[in-house]
This record gives sequence, structure tokens and C-alpha cells, in this order.
Amino acid sequence: MKDFVRKSGIRYMSDKQSAIGVFDSGLGGLTAVKQLKKILPDEKFIYFGDTGRVPYGTRSFETVNQYADDDMRFLLGFDIKAAIIACGTVSAVALDNLQKKFPLPIVGAIEPACIAAAQRTKNGNIAVFATPATIGKNSFATTLCGINPDLSVSSVACPMFVPLIEAGYIDVDCPVTRLIAREYLEKLQNADIDTLILGCTHYPIIKDLVASCAKELFGRDIEIIDSGYESALAAKKMLLQKDLLTDLDGQGSVQYFVSDETQNFSAVASIFLGEAAQNVTKVTIG
Amino acid sequence: MKDFVRKSGIRYMSDKQSAIGVFDSGLGGLTAVKQLKKILPDEKFIYFGDTGRVPYGTRSFETVNQYADDDMRFLLGFDIKAAIIACGTVSAVALDNLQKKFPLPIVGAIEPACIAAAQRTKNGNIAVFATPATIGKNSFATTLCGINPDLSVSSVACPMFVPLIEAGYIDVDCPVTRLIAREYLEKLQNADIDTLILGCTHYPIIKDLVASCAKELFGRDIEIIDSGYESALAAKKMLLQKDLLTDLDGQGSVQYFVSDETQNFSAVASIFLGEAAQNVTKVTIG
Repeated sequence: MKDFVRKSGIRYMSDKQSAIGVFDSGLGGLTAVKQLKKILPDEKFIYFGDTGRVPYGTRSFETVNQYADDDMRFLLGFDIKAAIIACGTVSAVALDNLQKKFPLPIVGAIEPACIAAAQRTKNGNIAVFATPATIGKNSFATTLCGINPDLSVSSVACPMFVPLIEAGYIDVDCPVTRLIAREYLEKLQNADIDTLILGCTHYPIIKDLVASCAKELFGRDIEIIDSGYESALAAKKMLLQKDLLTDLDGQGSVQYFVSDETQNFSAVASIFLGEAAQNVTKVTIG
Repeated sequence: MKDFVRKSGIRYMSDKQSAIGVFDSGLGGLTAVKQLKKILPDEKFIYFGDTGRVPYGTRSFETVNQYADDDMRFLLGFDIKAAIIACGTVSAVALDNLQKKFPLPIVGAIEPACIAAAQRTKNGNIAVFATPATIGKNSFATTLCGINPDLSVSSVACPMFVPLIEAGYIDVDCPVTRLIAREYLEKLQNADIDTLILGCTHYPIIKDLVASCAKELFGRDIEIIDSGYESALAAKKMLLQKDLLTDLDGQGSVQYFVSDETQNFSAVASIFLGEAAQNVTKVTIG
């Protein structure tokens, strides 16, 4: 055991061979798991999707904080060395509280994407697509301006993307999702953006559709930032810095836990994961 | 006090002046409240919207049963003489259990709509639009065939209607909602229907849009059944039969309780209610 920390009365021990906890309000975090498996193939992951209480994006801040606390306590029931919040809403609303309360390293879904966007923009005009709760909390804009106060940030709440993606309207040619994407992009018509952050873990599923609609509307390519991919890269960097990367090869695995029926989860999970989800267990939360 | 019943250990007392409890997974039930206020203007209503745990339509049957039980116990904390389940999903999944467990008269959202549809169809071909959970439970089809085994019933799960309505895509000309409605209606192309039940309390909000798309597609008018309106009529009939209608004039009122922030509720409630919701209180449930 490498670390032993006591904070807010919570004991926490871990070593290189401990797992990495990942949680999301539901299924979206699986896009992060897909990236994590690629970037950290030898690590063990414990995924918790709060499918019984999804979506968080339309809940009050108070409720999101309570749910995030429940979710983190669930993950801490396992031997984990770090946690990744694969949920834009929780990262926006509850990350500070979680980092104060729990002793382990926690990577959110916002800062890594903001750092990438600030590095890649050429004209300094960045847009953020996220759920209403994430946009309401203004976290992407605040984080981007903290990185570079000269950046100009346009935020657009996209309440229809999650239901569209979960209902399978994800083909690049889907007329319904293109209409909605164009509606959101039209709000950026005068912002002269060159970089767009997809600030919800669901949205990478329709990354190509958004890119195609943006090109159609703006007549040029827009750099699209996938917050799940950037979080996975940031998690690897952080584990490397803390000397917490596993030194065992070929031991990589994912265990999935959900708070509603596992059949529903398994059926939709393949959209997000790009493969079937094995080892799915239903648990009671909160 | 007129009634005193003990069933499953639950005490229950009420008289004509008691209130009527109404619950829904969230906001949709407000379309039923709107009809109830018209049809029973002198009654007192206690409305509970489980906005902290909405939507129920994508949950497992087990979870819906648990939530419905919580909701009914909350309403029974008030002096109520009857309960109306203004939620297609709960009516489909949990009504039988609730009627077995709780001693008061309970009106669901399915049987009244089915009786109305069976009376109004001329060619016996009826369609049902509802959430995936309601369709999965097959309750409308079972109920319709129980009323008249010669009816032919086509069921279509409509997962996109609730998010579209809650995001305000409700204008009769809205291109996105028309595309989705046409997609659902096209599944009925060979069914020769003359009657369509809107089996979710959200759907009456887009009744005119659905009617217009149906006429466009089928080239004729379709009889559209609003399950909230039919439930309100059925509730009045049942209270009359049991001599439980209030005999006081001008005492009508509605008290609203929700399980998430009241601001969100008040903002969207006017879409459903056709007026602002007064007397909204947040409560903890479950």
C-alpha cells in the first residue's frame, strides 16, 4: 500500500495495482471508458452508472451534489487509487465539493477539455456545447478564462442531444439530429469560433454529425474537443506523475455497476462502448 | 368522516370535503390537473410530481413499483378521498399493486382512455402512442382486448416525445417534432386506424401536431383520445357513484409538491397547465 490518507474521517489506501473508479449519471461515461481502455489498457476499472437516477443534467445543484456524494462513496467501497468523473454535470456542479471531501485524486471532465481547447484554438474564440445544468453553472467558461483571460467563450445548452443519442438518432445523416445540431450551431453564427468543446460524455457519439453540420453552416472545419478523451489523457498523466500506473501487463478489466436493471444498460451500452458490456451488476444507491 | 378502511395495515379516512390526490413522475400530470380543474372546479387537489426522479418511462418495472409506492404514501400523508395516477407508466406497471395495497379508490390513466377509444372507433382499428415502459407492459392492448376482443391494436413506443415537449418543441409547425411524429405514425401505415390513444400525459400538449401529421400521412382525420381528459372524466364519475363529490362551492384549489427544485418546476409547468403553478413546495421522497 502506497498511500494512507485521512481526510474528513474517510480512510483511503491504495497502490499501483488498485483499480480506477469511474462514475457517470448513466451511460455517457462509457465513451470515457472506451477511451480509457485504449489509453490505459492494463488498468482495472470500476464503472458506476447511476442509471436508476439518470439524468442529472436537469436536476438542481443540491440534488446533483447529493447524488455525486452517493456515487463516490459507492466507488470507495472498492480498492481504488483514483476516480474519474465521466459526467459534465457532476464535474460542473460537484467536483470542488468532492475534492474537498474525499482524499483520493479525482479527475473531472471539464479542466482537461478546457486546457486542450485553449491550446488548439488559433483565433481565441471557443464554443461549449453541454447540458443545461453544466451551462447554468458556467464552469467551462470560468475554467477557460482562468487558463487565458483573453479567450472568448460562447456557451450553448443542448437539452435534446442526450435523449436523441439514447434513442439511437446518431447516424451522421439523421435528419432530426442534424436539425437540432444546426439549431444549436446557429447560436454561434456571429461568434467566429474555430474550436468547439463537446462538454457532455454523450456527445462524442455524434461528433462527426456535429462537425459536418458545423462545416455546412460555417463553411470551414471546426476543431472539436471530446471531453471524455481529454479526461482519459489527463488521468494517465496524473497517475504517471504520482507513480500510480500499474506495472502489471495484460491485467486490464472493467467491472460495471448500475442502479437500474442491467438488461436496459447492456442493450444501450454497446452504442457508447463500441462493444458489449460484460460483468454488469445491479446495486442499490443513495 | 365517511369511510374508515383498514387494508394492508394502512388506515384511511375521508369524507366529501377531503382532497383528491394526483401524482405523476414529473410534469406531465399537470395536463390532467388542467382537465380536473375544469371538470371538478370545486374540488381540492394535492399534486405530487416526482421531479427529482423523473423520468419513470425508461426505468425497470421494479423501480417504477417502488417509486409509485413512495408517491402514494406521500399523498396518504394528506386527507385525501381518492387518488388519480396521472402517469401512463405508473398506471401500466404499478396500478394493480397500488390498488391491492392501498384502501382508497384509485383511478389510472389507461382504462378510461381505452373505454373511450373502444366506444369511438368505427372500424375497430386503434393505435396507442406511449413511453417504451408503458408499451413494454402492453397494458393498453390488454385492456382494449378485455373490453372488446375484436379490436385490432397497434402499439408504438415514442421515446422522443417527452424530451421534445419538455424542451418546448411543441408548436404545431415545429419541424423536428413533426419529423419524429411522422416517423411514429409511419409505423401505422398499414394498420388502417381511425382512433389513436395518446397514452402519456405529456402527449396532449402536441395533440394538434399529431392530428395534423396523421391527416397529412393518412389523408383523413383520426380520432385522438387524450388519456388525461378521460381519466378526469372517470374520476368525476367514480366520485359521484361513491357520493364523494364535495358539496361546497368555490373551494377549489391545488397544492403542488415536487421532489426537486421548485423553480425548474414553475418554469416548465405553465406549458402543461396553461397558467402559472402557485403553492409549490419541495419535499423529500423515498
